[in-house]
Amino acid sequence: MSKVQPRTLSGFMELLPARQVQFDRMVEILRRTYSLYGFTPLDTPLIEASEVLLAKGGGETEKQIYRFMKGDTDLSLRFDLTVPLAKYVAQNYGHLTFPFRRFQIGKVYRGERAQRGRFREFYQADIDVIGDGKLDISNEAEIPSIIYRAFSALGLKRFQIRVNNRKILNGFYAMLGLTEQSGEIMRTVDKLDKIGPDKVKELLVEAGLTQEQAGEILGFTAITGANQEVLTALEGYRGRNEIFDQGLDELTTVTKYLAAFGVPETHFAVDLTIARGLDYYTGTVYETTMLDHPEIGSICSGGRYDNLAEYYTDKQLPGVGISIGLTRLFFVLEDQGYLNDGLNTAPADVLVLPMTEDLSPAIALATQLRQAGIRAQIHAEQKKFKQKISYADKLHIPYVIFLGEDEIQSGTAAVKDLATGEQVKLPPAEAVAHIQAGLDKRNQGTPILDKGE
Amino acid sequence: MSKVQPRTLSGFMELLPARQVQFDRMVEILRRTYSLYGFTPLDTPLIEASEVLLAKGGGETEKQIYRFMKGDTDLSLRFDLTVPLAKYVAQNYGHLTFPFRRFQIGKVYRGERAQRGRFREFYQADIDVIGDGKLDISNEAEIPSIIYRAFSALGLKRFQIRVNNRKILNGFYAMLGLTEQSGEIMRTVDKLDKIGPDKVKELLVEAGLTQEQAGEILGFTAITGANQEVLTALEGYRGRNEIFDQGLDELTTVTKYLAAFGVPETHFAVDLTIARGLDYYTGTVYETTMLDHPEIGSICSGGRYDNLAEYYTDKQLPGVGISIGLTRLFFVLEDQGYLNDGLNTAPADVLVLPMTEDLSPAIALATQLRQAGIRAQIHAEQKKFKQKISYADKLHIPYVIFLGEDEIQSGTAAVKDLATGEQVKLPPAEAVAHIQAGLDKRNQGTPILDKGE
Repeated sequence: MSKVQPRTLSGFMELLPARQVQFDRMVEILRRTYSLYGFTPLDTPLIEASEVLLAKGGGETEKQIYRFMKGDTDLSLRFDLTVPLAKYVAQNYGHLTFPFRRFQIGKVYRGERAQRGRFREFYQADIDVIGDGKLDISNEAEIPSIIYRAFSALGLKRFQIRVNNRKILNGFYAMLGLTEQSGEIMRTVDKLDKIGPDKVKELLVEAGLTQEQAGEILGFTAITGANQEVLTALEGYRGRNEIFDQGLDELTTVTKYLAAFGVPETHFAVDLTIARGLDYYTGTVYETTMLDHPEIGSICSGGRYDNLAEYYTDKQLPGVGISIGLTRLFFVLEDQGYLNDGLNTAPADVLVLPMTEDLSPAIALATQLRQAGIRAQIHAEQKKFKQKISYADKLHIPYVIFLGEDEIQSGTAAVKDLATGEQVKLPPAEAVAHIQAGLDKRNQGTPILDKGE
Repeated sequence: MSKVQPRTLSGFMELLPARQVQFDRMVEILRRTYSLYGFTPLDTPLIEASEVLLAKGGGETEKQIYRFMKGDTDLSLRFDLTVPLAKYVAQNYGHLTFPFRRFQIGKVYRGERAQRGRFREFYQADIDVIGDGKLDISNEAEIPSIIYRAFSALGLKRFQIRVNNRKILNGFYAMLGLTEQSGEIMRTVDKLDKIGPDKVKELLVEAGLTQEQAGEILGFTAITGANQEVLTALEGYRGRNEIFDQGLDELTTVTKYLAAFGVPETHFAVDLTIARGLDYYTGTVYETTMLDHPEIGSICSGGRYDNLAEYYTDKQLPGVGISIGLTRLFFVLEDQGYLNDGLNTAPADVLVLPMTEDLSPAIALATQLRQAGIRAQIHAEQKKFKQKISYADKLHIPYVIFLGEDEIQSGTAAVKDLATGEQVKLPPAEAVAHIQAGLDKRNQGTPILDKGE
């Protein structure tokens, strides 16, 4: 038979087993972290009617969409988890209780040009809090603590949550009489990290600003320092614009509650250069950077918005949310050597090797191990003893149990720790406890190993 | 602004929050169960090159495929998890260790005609054991124990795993000189449950069999009774066909190890009417039925096959696997009132109600609860007290904590159990323990409540 070459599409991450275990462990930690903050899981379809998914229409995104006909139906694959959320909330409004806090971890699709580290199918891990008409600022204050806890639980240490408030920016540009140009200005200022202040100033002047205006803007974005210093500097602008003052109040509140939320000062920075998705966000905005890898850009971003679902409903649904691009993050972590390969990635904790023809005792022992929550595999293939040990070695299975006539007669099991070579003969119940204790030790640690501090 | 009607495509399951929690709990139990047997998780792309996915080609499936062009690339959405596994194993053969045991729980797509209880996007929860060249029969014997443990862990009681062996069927038809017609015969016999023996006999004769042959076949499929009785009856055919004898040996082995694997006789039946996917399976085949809902058909099926990846590689890769159609199962369970609504589906365990303007103490308390693993939400919206309690009620959040000046001064928290109305004032650490004990009680139980027994 002629064969088809098996291959995976470029831009689609498909992991080998040990890596998949590492990825899944990260997903599990994010699920748990999000749950701790009272977010409920959602799972929306990957396919939506194009008319619904693209209600907002236009823009760069549309070109990247996987869109196709099935029969007479115009379908699209979701390109983020926010639009499906908007649809869900508008559609199920009467069945939901607000504030509605949901998390969703799922795949999204964008037909970007394939290049290293860019994915066409990738996981996003999102949370959003949606209010009905109103939403208290304390929700915006809570977000940094969720980001902090999530990345800390993953094992990341050297990261920083950078926060700004769109009202401060809008108010500031209003002071300068530059409200109409503010969108374009912010897009330019957004390039500060990449092209530097001189080039930004040049671009601003080219765009029609006076030298003085451009200078004011750069002076403003140059306000840096400890959070309290930045807030104090911002107080100097107070009283000149209502929106600005409101934004400053919000930023002050967000900063004030950090300590109670358990976020250390070291991991949080008020950063006036951050604007994010210009039209959508209306209050606090967030970015998160790896201090040792600024080139990666933000690994967790989001912000406050006033209208989640305006394309679907007249209801005012303000919210705040963040998103982690998990597939790209995982790629970067692997690429930069951050993955903790010391954590158990074996498919089983114990490999049971029956040494008798009748497998019943080995099966009964494996059943007992499984009932105790220990992952057990029976290796009953017609292979040489050495090959079976090599099987456990290759998969990094921590324990092997030999069960021969001797052990069966004496009601014991010979348990070998493959890392230390230590072997003990124990009655099954004690073997379970012995292995469980060893596993508890081995399973400690985080999926990310961040050596820096 | 004119609005787009938010809607979800028909045939796509999208759950309300409490139901989603129930669904996710079932997924989690399946993950854990599969892991206990040494299966490693895989996650393959939802999109594959059509050429690769449809290498086998033809058949009913192809019409149902979601297939489309993106630029110049011919793409298809996966319609099961087996073909992607075959691709994965062929492609990564050199990186895998055999027997390779993997589980995958993921969505697949089939553009079936939409009707109640039929889904176009649905989860499959699969396991497969793949051997390199050979695979021991003990793997086939283990499968019923995985099915038994999985459904038992979900809470299902009245189900039966029905097992047959394709070699017994093939051998039997060879004895009758009906090897060439066996495919068609088995398709007809497969209808026994639906149309009854008389109609089946009629169809067989119409298809050209003699009355005697048809009678022999019905006599064979009528062999029922306790497993040992069936095996004994089958022994009566031994010695007439080599394949038959081999199949009988295998079936005997599978049955022999049931007790050691912890599968009670009540939940396992040798059933000679089961054939399954005629071309693919070559040994043991499995179906699982709900005893009180036979009309649903099999809720977990699979079997032994000789060649996983013959379209991609010359390597002989025999395997055995089963699949649970999770979305359809969930639909049926909900429809038939099997879901345990007593299990906690709230997004949070505790709703913290700050009664002071400064939220710091409430935030600090919520932080402490979360550090103890308790899911906590702070309700700081500008709402009346009664509305906040009603929020907790509607979401079935089990505990509310009031934190007013009194409590802050005295270093306590007022914890109210919303189910009993009981309210206690406790220092934070004791409040944590109090809540944890209550939750442990509440979180006992299985997602499925099967009253029958």
